[in-house]
Amino acid sequence: MDIEKVNSMDFGEFVDVFGNVIERCPLIAAAVQSQRPFSDLQDLKKHFFALIDALPQPGQEGILRCRPDLAGRELQRGTLAAESQREQSGAGLTSLGADEMRRLAELNAQYRARFGFPLVLAARLSDSAAVPRELERRLRCPPAQELRTALGEVKKIGRLRLADLLGADPAKL
Amino acid sequence: MDIEKVNSMDFGEFVDVFGNVIERCPLIAAAVQSQRPFSDLQDLKKHFFALIDALPQPGQEGILRCRPDLAGRELQRGTLAAESQREQSGAGLTSLGADEMRRLAELNAQYRARFGFPLVLAARLSDSAAVPRELERRLRCPPAQELRTALGEVKKIGRLRLADLLGADPAKL
Repeated sequence: MDIEKVNSMDFGEFVDVFGNVIERCPLIAAAVQSQRPFSDLQDLKKHFFALIDALPQPGQEGILRCRPDLAGRELQRGTLAAESQREQSGAGLTSLGADEMRRLAELNAQYRARFGFPLVLAARLSDSAAVPRELERRLRCPPAQELRTALGEVKKIGRLRLADLLGADPAKL
Repeated sequence: MDIEKVNSMDFGEFVDVFGNVIERCPLIAAAVQSQRPFSDLQDLKKHFFALIDALPQPGQEGILRCRPDLAGRELQRGTLAAESQREQSGAGLTSLGADEMRRLAELNAQYRARFGFPLVLAARLSDSAAVPRELERRLRCPPAQELRTALGEVKKIGRLRLADLLGADPAKL
């Protein structure tokens, strides 16, 4: 998809296509679309990121709270957004043993209790062995630093999703 | 519902209950919940409004873009959020004649073309005769003023929805 095609989309089309670049936050896509035209695909990505950065902190936490748990109940029930389902399956999170599942559920609960939002991690850039290690490491981070880290992961996930939707090389976005 | 009950809700419950106070923007409810505890029901309302005010302008436009057209295709198809369906029906927008429907569709299209978002109007405080008059009046407003007016209507609608959910008198919220 080229940038002319993106710029020609009306509001409804744009939100249908890009509404889940930031998971379950079509508001972000709606806000980005109001800033048309975009000069190129990278410029489109920059508008998504700039809007996240410009949100007041509760809004940024709201974005994180709209994310599902990694290897959580929704993955098991198959009620995740299609993108998350693919990403978490690809990282091997659908084929964990019972002990690993239990350990992850415990860590997720501790993380959510400490920070008020679920762990966000770009699963496509990780694997099932790395996820619990990363969770343990991040559980020990100060909250302000962890908010920045988590928003960085939201951006990594968004960049990969945009690259898929646009048929673009993620390295060039 | 009293404020202790609201403060005791976890994230998922809160978004299930209050996710559509700002239509199709559960992100706003998620952000508000992170600011618990609330001192009273009015304080809860103030947090919703403060978050809208604190959004960058594209985010505010994004909220407006998540709203359906008044007396639009979704009302006819019955695919509106339950709250909007009730509000628009109550204002008599389901029983318009063919000429009135056509006129409203034209005005809605002009409004959207001029401002980039659909007309937002607290239908419960209006009626089917007033809507086209109000549309014509607001079509002539400068964009910056109209953005403020539209966000004011989002707040009126949100206040009424909150009052319903909480079983509270809207005049006291």
